[in-house]
This record gives sequence, C-alpha cells and structure tokens, in this order.
Amino acid sequence: MTKAMVPADPNYRDRVTAGFARQQAMQTLHIELVRVEPGEVELAFPYDPLLTQQHGFIHGGILSTALDSACGYAAFSLMSVDASVLTVEFKVNLLAPARGDRFQVIGRVVKPGRTITVCQGEAFAYVDTQSKLIATMTATLMAVFDRKDVQE
Amino acid sequence: MTKAMVPADPNYRDRVTAGFARQQAMQTLHIELVRVEPGEVELAFPYDPLLTQQHGFIHGGILSTALDSACGYAAFSLMSVDASVLTVEFKVNLLAPARGDRFQVIGRVVKPGRTITVCQGEAFAYVDTQSKLIATMTATLMAVFDRKDVQE
Amino acid sequence: MTKAMVPADPNYRDRVTAGFARQQAMQTLHIELVRVEPGEVELAFPYDPLLTQQHGFIHGGILSTALDSACGYAAFSLMSVDASVLTVEFKVNLLAPARGDRFQVIGRVVKPGRTITVCQGEAFAYVDTQSKLIATMTATLMAVFDRKDVQE
Amino acid sequence: MTKAMVPADPNYRDRVTAGFARQQAMQTLHIELVRVEPGEVELAFPYDPLLTQQHGFIHGGILSTALDSACGYAAFSLMSVDASVLTVEFKVNLLAPARGDRFQVIGRVVKPGRTITVCQGEAFAYVDTQSKLIATMTATLMAVFDRKDVQE
Repeated sequence: MTKAMVPADPNYRDRVTAGFARQQAMQTLHIELVRVEPGEVELAFPYDPLLTQQHGFIHGGILSTALDSACGYAAFSLMSVDASVLTVEFKVNLLAPARGDRFQVIGRVVKPGRTITVCQGEAFAYVDTQSKLIATMTATLMAVFDRKDVQE
Repeated sequence: MTKAMVPADPNYRDRVTAGFARQQAMQTLHIELVRVEPGEVELAFPYDPLLTQQHGFIHGGILSTALDSACGYAAFSLMSVDASVLTVEFKVNLLAPARGDRFQVIGRVVKPGRTITVCQGEAFAYVDTQSKLIATMTATLMAVFDRKDVQE
Repeated sequence: MTKAMVPADPNYRDRVTAGFARQQAMQTLHIELVRVEPGEVELAFPYDPLLTQQHGFIHGGILSTALDSACGYAAFSLMSVDASVLTVEFKVNLLAPARGDRFQVIGRVVKPGRTITVCQGEAFAYVDTQSKLIATMTATLMAVFDRKDVQE
Repeated sequence: MTKAMVPADPNYRDRVTAGFARQQAMQTLHIELVRVEPGEVELAFPYDPLLTQQHGFIHGGILSTALDSACGYAAFSLMSVDASVLTVEFKVNLLAPARGDRFQVIGRVVKPGRTITVCQGEAFAYVDTQSKLIATMTATLMAVFDRKDVQE
C-alpha cells in the first residue's frame, strides 16, 4: 500500500506538528511528538505516578489517549490541507501492565481513505533498553472538510 | 439479570471507594466518584482546558479514561473480596464533540462472570442542565485472584 | 433522542425490506426480517446444526452476521432515499454460548448522523419462552451517496 | 515474542485440525484450513453468491466468521491439551468491499496468555493473483479448562 501512503500535502509534517501542539492534553500528560512520517507517528512519555491506576501502573486510559493521538495524527499526515481529523471510534487491548520508565506509542495507517482512515497503534513500555508491547489500538478516523458536519 | 447483580461482598461500596481513591490518575484529572450501586458506577468531572484536543473539546482519551474507570469499578462492585479487576480491552465510540461545562460518566455491568465481566459505559456532556450523550464504551474486565497471573 | 429518529424517507420500511431481501447471505442462513421501526430492526433465525462451532452452539460469526445486518438496516431506516449503507466496523462481545431453539437479534440506532451512524445490537437465545442475552454489538455505519467512494 | 509462540502441546497441529473439523459452520460456508503454525492459522474460501450482502460482495459477517475461526485456532495452537478456546470478543474493520474470486484469512497471536490470548486477523481478497487487504480483526480469546465456567 506504499502508493496510498503519499501525503496529499507536502507540508504534512508541519501540519501534524502544529495540530499536535494544539492538543493541550498532550502537554498536560507530558506526551511528546517524536517522529512524523507519511502515515506514521511516534509519541513518547515518561512514567508519572500522577497518571497511574490502582496498582501503580500507567492508567489504560492514559495509554489510550496517547494511542488515539498517534493514530489520529498518522491519519492526518496523509490528508489534504483543508481537512480536519476526528476520531470516530477506537478499541484498545491492554496486553500487559504499563510498567516502565518510559513509553513509546506508534500509530500507523492501515487503510487511508477520502473519508474514513483506519489505523493501528502499538504501545511499548521500556525498562532501561528493554521494551515490551503492552497495548494495541485499532482506530477509525474521519476527515472532516466542513466542521459543522460534526458539531450537530 | 437482577439476580446476577447481587454483589458478592456486602461491603462492595467501601471496596470500590478505596480502589478508586488509589487511582492517582483520577485525582490528577479531577474525576470524582459520584455514585456506587451493585454493578453500576457514576463518575463526574468538570471541563478543563488542560485536557483538550486540537479543537478545544475534552480529549477522547480523557473521556475513555473516565469510562474505563467507571466500567472497571462497576465490574469490581460485584466481585468477591479477594479479587482484583483488570481491563482486558475496551472500545469507545465518540458520538459528538466533548463540549460542555461538566461531564457525567456511567459504567454498568451487562454480563457479570466469575472470570470475565462485560460492561457498557456512557458519557454525557452538560451545558447548564442540558445533557447530551457524547460517547459509549464496551469494556471487558477480568477478575484476577492471583496477581502474578497478569504480570507474566 | 426521539427527534433524531424520524426517518428521512417515509417509505423507509419498504426500502429496508427490499435491501434486506437482496442480502443473499440472509436467505442462505435462514435469517428473517421480523420488524422494522425508525432506527430499529429485529431479525430472527432458528437453530441450525450446519451453522455451529466446535461445541455445537451457533458460531459467533453467524451471530455477528445477523447483528451486522440488524444494525445496518436500523441505520439505513433513517437515511435518505439516495443513500446506501456500509459497515465501517463492528465489535461483538459473546456473553454466553449461543444455545437455543431460535435466536432474536435487534439493532438500534444510538446516534444517527449525516455520514456516520452508530448502532448497538443485542442477540438473545430462546429455549421455549425463556430468553437470554448472548451477544452485544456496537457498529459504525456510513451513509454512501456516491458508491464509487467506497469502491476505491 | 518468538519465545512465547512455542506451543504447549507438540501435537498442536492435529488438535487444531480436529477442532476446526468440528466447526460445522466452516464446512457449510466452504471455509478451508490451509495452514497451521504455532500461533498462526490460515483459512481460505471461494466467492459464493449465496453469502453476499446487498451489493453482491461477501457479507461482512461471513468474513468475520472466517476471521474469528482463524484467530481462535491461532490462539488454540499454543494452548495446552486440556484447554478449550472461546471467543470473548472481536472487532472487525471492513476496509474495502469483499470483491474477489477467493479469500484468504490469517489469524495471528499477538499476545499469548494462560487465560487470555489476543490475536489479530487479516482478510485478503484475490482477483487472479492480485490480493488486497479487505478486513482486519482484533480478537480476545479465553482458554477454558472447566467448560462449566462458561456455561453459567
């Protein structure tokens, strides 16, 4: 599917970076944009005891927040300049406790489309240099050209 | 399914309250426990610009964090005293932008089970006294009796 | 959400009936259209040993086929005359073995929309007059006005 | 994750083959077992107009039936001899119309576990020798050692 992964906008990287910077939740959660490729976005964040669930691991919802953003901007990277991106739905499987010093989250486009884009995300926990797959996401994103469409 | 919604532990409310209080992410995100019934938990949180996505609405991942906790503790409310609860997976549909002054999140057990419990969650946005359904979740939770089981 | 459940086409019932009749898989699997309301469709099918999994219960995929059709036509019932409906994605939770004499499957619109409609489905197994919830579905459907859109 | 993909039972291939043969739905739908590896199962089936939706493509539920079986037996291939496998839930994204002469469906274990196994599935449509990814699945399977557990 290499052909389809050509971004519609050559300045896709700037648009992704600017869009990501407007997500205040990312700054609040200390989630950083690490890498942007056509159809692929990588984020990272450190362990933070303030974002944990009852066993002291990162809350699954926080992981989902990072996975959703990674998938959303992976989809956005291929869209035309006049498009906004909205998450229609996502599903997360939590494979192992989110125990680690830092976390890497990657979103990749599986199927780009004019309206609907499907992405898969993976979250890895790092302890020193050892990484472990701890969660996967499948996300459905929608390109929106007329913002009123989704504000009904 | 009323019969099945009898909690195994009469002190279920205390256990849910104590478990919820250990989720530091809830305090960080200002998500509060409002109500605990057998198989049903209600949470609430105010609008916070620090938790928004690129259009100024609450980030879908933050909604998911609240929905996951509501579903998890709804499941936990029916479990026996020696059980921990873990989220196996969840799926969220974002139905409308999370625009509002405050948000109400309800998790309900659909099917309790010895090992696997299935819950559904609903998130509502409030503007004054008007509410709107903005997201739904289906979550699969697992009762864990031997924590090592899930730490492999 | 009653207001939103007004069908765009007063002849919605005929359109649903005609569309359902074109799904050859329904006839092959002996799944029948029982009831059509605005935003709600009910199907039914008998137990058939030819459609079972390894334990002699109806295969989860067959249940999903019925749930998908029920959700799809529930969404379709609210759409305008020039729209086709396509399933974007669905998620099924299998709550209990599909053991019964006959099965009832209901799809309901949770959130109608110009492009995206979200439905929930429920499948019940009947043994004599006793019914049991055996599966739930959440489905995302898309209205398509230009078939080429989805044939890329 | 190679280490984890060692089957608990050296006769895993025979067990998968025998289990698959007991799924009468597979024979009815002409879905064949093509390949069994540790943690990976491949199925195939031809186009059949009797299994189509309203546009003449294979019904998404039929694809899901094949994907569910592929994922289920991929999980089963790693389980011990005394285990049965049950699908807890699955999610399917339909990426493109199921238009083709024949269909290939592959299920792979992403995360094996004593109780819970997570798999991903992919379905491809073939026209002559050209293939296209048309659907993906994420499935959660459960090993059951005491059948009564799931028959409650």
